[in-house]
Amino acid sequence: MLSPLDKIFYPASIAIIGASSKEGSLSYELINNLINYRYNGKIFPVNPKADSVHSIKSYKSIKDVSDDIDLAILMIPRDLVLPAIDDCAAKKIQSVVVITAGFKETGAEGADIEKKLVEKIRKYGMRLVGPNCMGIINTNPAVKLNGTFVLGKPIHGGIGFVSQSGALGAAVLKTVEQNDIGLAQFISIGNKADVSGNTIIEYWWNNDDIKVITVYLESFGDPRKFMELTREITKTKPVIVIKSARTSAGMKAASSHTGALASSDVVVDAFLEQGGVIRVNSTDEMFDLAKAFDRAKLPLGNRVGILTNAGGPAILAVDECANSGLVIPELDKITQDKLRAIAPKEASVYNPVDLLPPADSTMYSEAAKLIIEDENIDSLIIVLGPPLMLDTLEIAGAICESVKNSDKTVTLVLMSQDDIIPKLKEVSPEHPPLYRFPENAARTISKLYNYRLWKESAPGNIIKYDADKSVVKKILLNYRGKSGIYMDFEDVHKIMSAYGLPVVNSAYAESIEMLLKIAPKLKYPVVIKAMGKLLVHKSDLGAVEIDIHTEHELVAAAKRIIANLEKNEILDGLEKFLIQPYVTGGVETILGITTDNKAGKMIMFGLGGIFVEIFKDVNFKLVPIFDNEAEYMINAIRSSAILKGVRGKEPVNIAYIKESLLRLSQLASDFPGFAEIDLNPFVFFSEKEKCSILDARIKI
Amino acid sequence: MLSPLDKIFYPASIAIIGASSKEGSLSYELINNLINYRYNGKIFPVNPKADSVHSIKSYKSIKDVSDDIDLAILMIPRDLVLPAIDDCAAKKIQSVVVITAGFKETGAEGADIEKKLVEKIRKYGMRLVGPNCMGIINTNPAVKLNGTFVLGKPIHGGIGFVSQSGALGAAVLKTVEQNDIGLAQFISIGNKADVSGNTIIEYWWNNDDIKVITVYLESFGDPRKFMELTREITKTKPVIVIKSARTSAGMKAASSHTGALASSDVVVDAFLEQGGVIRVNSTDEMFDLAKAFDRAKLPLGNRVGILTNAGGPAILAVDECANSGLVIPELDKITQDKLRAIAPKEASVYNPVDLLPPADSTMYSEAAKLIIEDENIDSLIIVLGPPLMLDTLEIAGAICESVKNSDKTVTLVLMSQDDIIPKLKEVSPEHPPLYRFPENAARTISKLYNYRLWKESAPGNIIKYDADKSVVKKILLNYRGKSGIYMDFEDVHKIMSAYGLPVVNSAYAESIEMLLKIAPKLKYPVVIKAMGKLLVHKSDLGAVEIDIHTEHELVAAAKRIIANLEKNEILDGLEKFLIQPYVTGGVETILGITTDNKAGKMIMFGLGGIFVEIFKDVNFKLVPIFDNEAEYMINAIRSSAILKGVRGKEPVNIAYIKESLLRLSQLASDFPGFAEIDLNPFVFFSEKEKCSILDARIKI
Repeated sequence: MLSPLDKIFYPASIAIIGASSKEGSLSYELINNLINYRYNGKIFPVNPKADSVHSIKSYKSIKDVSDDIDLAILMIPRDLVLPAIDDCAAKKIQSVVVITAGFKETGAEGADIEKKLVEKIRKYGMRLVGPNCMGIINTNPAVKLNGTFVLGKPIHGGIGFVSQSGALGAAVLKTVEQNDIGLAQFISIGNKADVSGNTIIEYWWNNDDIKVITVYLESFGDPRKFMELTREITKTKPVIVIKSARTSAGMKAASSHTGALASSDVVVDAFLEQGGVIRVNSTDEMFDLAKAFDRAKLPLGNRVGILTNAGGPAILAVDECANSGLVIPELDKITQDKLRAIAPKEASVYNPVDLLPPADSTMYSEAAKLIIEDENIDSLIIVLGPPLMLDTLEIAGAICESVKNSDKTVTLVLMSQDDIIPKLKEVSPEHPPLYRFPENAARTISKLYNYRLWKESAPGNIIKYDADKSVVKKILLNYRGKSGIYMDFEDVHKIMSAYGLPVVNSAYAESIEMLLKIAPKLKYPVVIKAMGKLLVHKSDLGAVEIDIHTEHELVAAAKRIIANLEKNEILDGLEKFLIQPYVTGGVETILGITTDNKAGKMIMFGLGGIFVEIFKDVNFKLVPIFDNEAEYMINAIRSSAILKGVRGKEPVNIAYIKESLLRLSQLASDFPGFAEIDLNPFVFFSEKEKCSILDARIKI
Repeated sequence: MLSPLDKIFYPASIAIIGASSKEGSLSYELINNLINYRYNGKIFPVNPKADSVHSIKSYKSIKDVSDDIDLAILMIPRDLVLPAIDDCAAKKIQSVVVITAGFKETGAEGADIEKKLVEKIRKYGMRLVGPNCMGIINTNPAVKLNGTFVLGKPIHGGIGFVSQSGALGAAVLKTVEQNDIGLAQFISIGNKADVSGNTIIEYWWNNDDIKVITVYLESFGDPRKFMELTREITKTKPVIVIKSARTSAGMKAASSHTGALASSDVVVDAFLEQGGVIRVNSTDEMFDLAKAFDRAKLPLGNRVGILTNAGGPAILAVDECANSGLVIPELDKITQDKLRAIAPKEASVYNPVDLLPPADSTMYSEAAKLIIEDENIDSLIIVLGPPLMLDTLEIAGAICESVKNSDKTVTLVLMSQDDIIPKLKEVSPEHPPLYRFPENAARTISKLYNYRLWKESAPGNIIKYDADKSVVKKILLNYRGKSGIYMDFEDVHKIMSAYGLPVVNSAYAESIEMLLKIAPKLKYPVVIKAMGKLLVHKSDLGAVEIDIHTEHELVAAAKRIIANLEKNEILDGLEKFLIQPYVTGGVETILGITTDNKAGKMIMFGLGGIFVEIFKDVNFKLVPIFDNEAEYMINAIRSSAILKGVRGKEPVNIAYIKESLLRLSQLASDFPGFAEIDLNPFVFFSEKEKCSILDARIKI
């Protein structure tokens, strides 16, 4: 039996509640679309005032219909929606699409009705799409359902498109139709009262009609769920999301480094990247890519062949390939000889292969076949500039025929021949993805290749390190009921030790005499810091002294700190001194935890100092992270080369950075009460034993 | 009288040499275009075998035509071109377009004929477009010239487009026509035997028909000329160039830091940026921008208003505005009140203003007028999503009318209503630039705004510092006839001093005893380096010792260097020691000069160490640089914040960096014999007196 979600996309019968016979009304257009797109099922218009709608018998009430109804589409005034849901329930309808607007999006009154609507459908065990949406489409030839009020006949293909915005959805439907892009299913989820983006992508994951999932969301209801879902889905099917910076209502006011860097856009990037999602900037870019996933094979490697009848576009393709990490190898000598035999004398046969403007369908199709079979290339970009006195459609058709059985990635660029694009499917229904300019084809191939690498990468694992939870629990007892404050450094030190995170050897001194006693035990040179709840930005206060080599210097340093605090009128805040060995060399990094309102705990990694402050060169992930995600974080920052050793320096212990990230992730997921953690700086050396955290802060 | 270039674009009479009456031939199509586009002059077909072509009397020879001929278009076989030029000269024709291919682009034989062709037209004082090109267009209503063989009726507007690639040109002509983009003039320059990109942009500079210049070049014949021209032109007219990485045939093999960083793409970026040229990545992006320069006003500020009937697209616009440095301010309270009075109850009136899907033409046009008059905004993006049961064209027309007299920047986004775009000009000939998606409109406004800032910035000046040229000349005498070698450090030191560039106090010692004598005079701590022609990569050889505090340390350091050189089997290369004070603190930068085959001398600025090596965070300009270009270079690098002081450090003396760049630029332009100069590191402090060059190398 069909599930309620199946009944939304594959209904055998649909009731249109609020069917109007008034031409131009939304429900008239929707019924018109159902009929014109040749819906393969039964339609039951419901309208208390009409006998027939659009030549179809109409019913006063849904209860008058004797057939079983799989799906009800509601297009009645808002205040009639709740009673209509009761009627649907009485008729044992499990799936409803509410197109009617005027709910949450209009204010408190609407929100209240929407809440009641959700309660009702939960009570009845129904699934609800909308309200305030524009409907659904399924192009499957056995279904042929255009249940929207946007005029059109969507072309059948493998793309699933879910849109939170109706207007954008409508615009995109028109665009893809005009550009011969094949949709499988479309859904406008409107206010997402029940069925959300997550519901749909999870549904499409196991739906064989869907080859690639495309998503436009303005808000992520549950970013963590989205990430966890896509992290699995993208191992089977690509998911493409349009960049939209909105995520949580805003970060909690952040005073830590980590928190300050977690802008909403960074958070979105983090969970999309972690989910293996391809993030694009525009609908154009989304469908450039989606049609390739639908129609082309994934490239086995990054080597691209280019076939053209004009030099200019080939240069643009070469440039864009180079920018996107693809290479343009020379073709095999044998291929070159064979090409020379069929091409004009002046043609270039190395790669790009330029057949010159007179190239006809025979030359193009033979050349395409030769190049695609060359072992030096994985993908082929065929550029067809407006040919001279030849029929573009004939040439394009011949090209499509010649490459259609290849296992390699093929894209066809019909330079500015927009008029040919919709016609090509008549000549060659199985044609490769079409582009108007070669740069787009090049960018697309690069993204297909990167997706392949992601898809084939080993799945990650959660690694559990031994850690003494009880220590942390005990410390937390002292902070019970407190929030928004920083923990004592001694407590932080103990917590880190419990999780195997090495805070530098530290001691406390309540007087200069004590400092003088402790220093030789730690060994000079040492660092001292003024400690106290009120002393937060220590460097700015002049409360830190480093590189102290002698007793004499130690006394002077402590006195300087006292003088600085006095000058800043905060000497009362000095509770004691912290004294530590002075660590030099190594690479300063920052490891941190912050909390996003919606996404929850996030972990950050970056290099310390200017790399964080100026370049904001950090990477975030949602906690807990997999082992391979920790590796990814380390490699993702632009400055990661520094960790691997530059200017004759030894590389640092990257395996230990990874371990430290995983340990910190474990701590943050074991104890969600830690709002922010900054390990800054965490200095790494090549020897694990030398690595240490010089300062650590935890905010409850 | 018309100049030869005027006669190319504004001819009163045209001879088509090689006019064919064979339908489908190139020349038939070209004559067809001339007639169908209603050329406002006389056409004289020339064909030895035909009496008439396309119902027009045809001549056996150009010499048989009794009328004066302004322009000859040659479409005859290659080997007939040279004699035809003689005939044109005899007929006193000053301007020719050679469409015929088969010249330089096909190899040595063709190149030879092209050389003769150029000699011939130079001798006759003619101007030549092509060969191997696809012709010219001028849409000026008094001319109406479509002298290409690409079928079409270009729309009249203010865009000049020069294309090196014929195929790309043809593709673009089709695209712009389909998208209601107005061309003024188009020229395909083919092999650029005479008329080049530089010729055309200079010609268009003072041509009132041209409002914006767009350029597709695969190669820059004279990058320096291009830069000098565009640096002036862009103060009056915008110039947009499609990114294409090809410039010089390749850099001279570079061993300096500066040379290694000057990739061909960096060189192109340098001279385009210096010329105030807007560089884009694709033809789509080029015309998105060009149509705005043609049809919209330049924004006075960066504050954008957004008017929409759908939330989704408005969000995309807001996101892209934020990414592009634009702001979306709240509208004035009075505007909000007025909007509230005309908008539906649920509408949002802050900014973006969302009128919701039922918005009709009255509501839209009134709202547009209210927003555009609000003092808080400088530009307006109007988004029109497919309206419900209303006529898009009517609404779009009303919007265009309501904003057409505004002095502010207006863009109109017809979401996916591609079918409406070509129709709008009938309803509203003066409509604002049209976009299919809101992101493109937002990006465009940001670029218009940046162009305005550039246009209004004060022009730069060359500053001449006192410098002792004779010192440099005298030193260069010793290097006469030498090339590809590094100069002695002592000579480099003297040259820098002659140009006021402060190399750190340095002395030489031929023995450890001498080192010990000199060190106290320089004051400890000191640095020593092994010097010798064979010792190039000193750090790698272990030939540098820093931070030497005592006599004892000095002896040990010198012995370590000797041991290292011995180990590297290069001890013979040790000629003497260099000893300098050890400078710590400050910010290390690198200032350098390199030579590009085509662009010539270039100057580079960046921060030293990892910023150069890992981030390649440097900026190049062609030498000599203006004072404002030196400032630009300092601000253009991502790490420039470090110069302004971070983490409590004092800012360095940026005015002195600027002066040093200008002095180095002066040195490089006074003495072109210096192939590469590296001042690395050049350490800057806040006090000018402390700044010094710690190492300097010059390659002849």
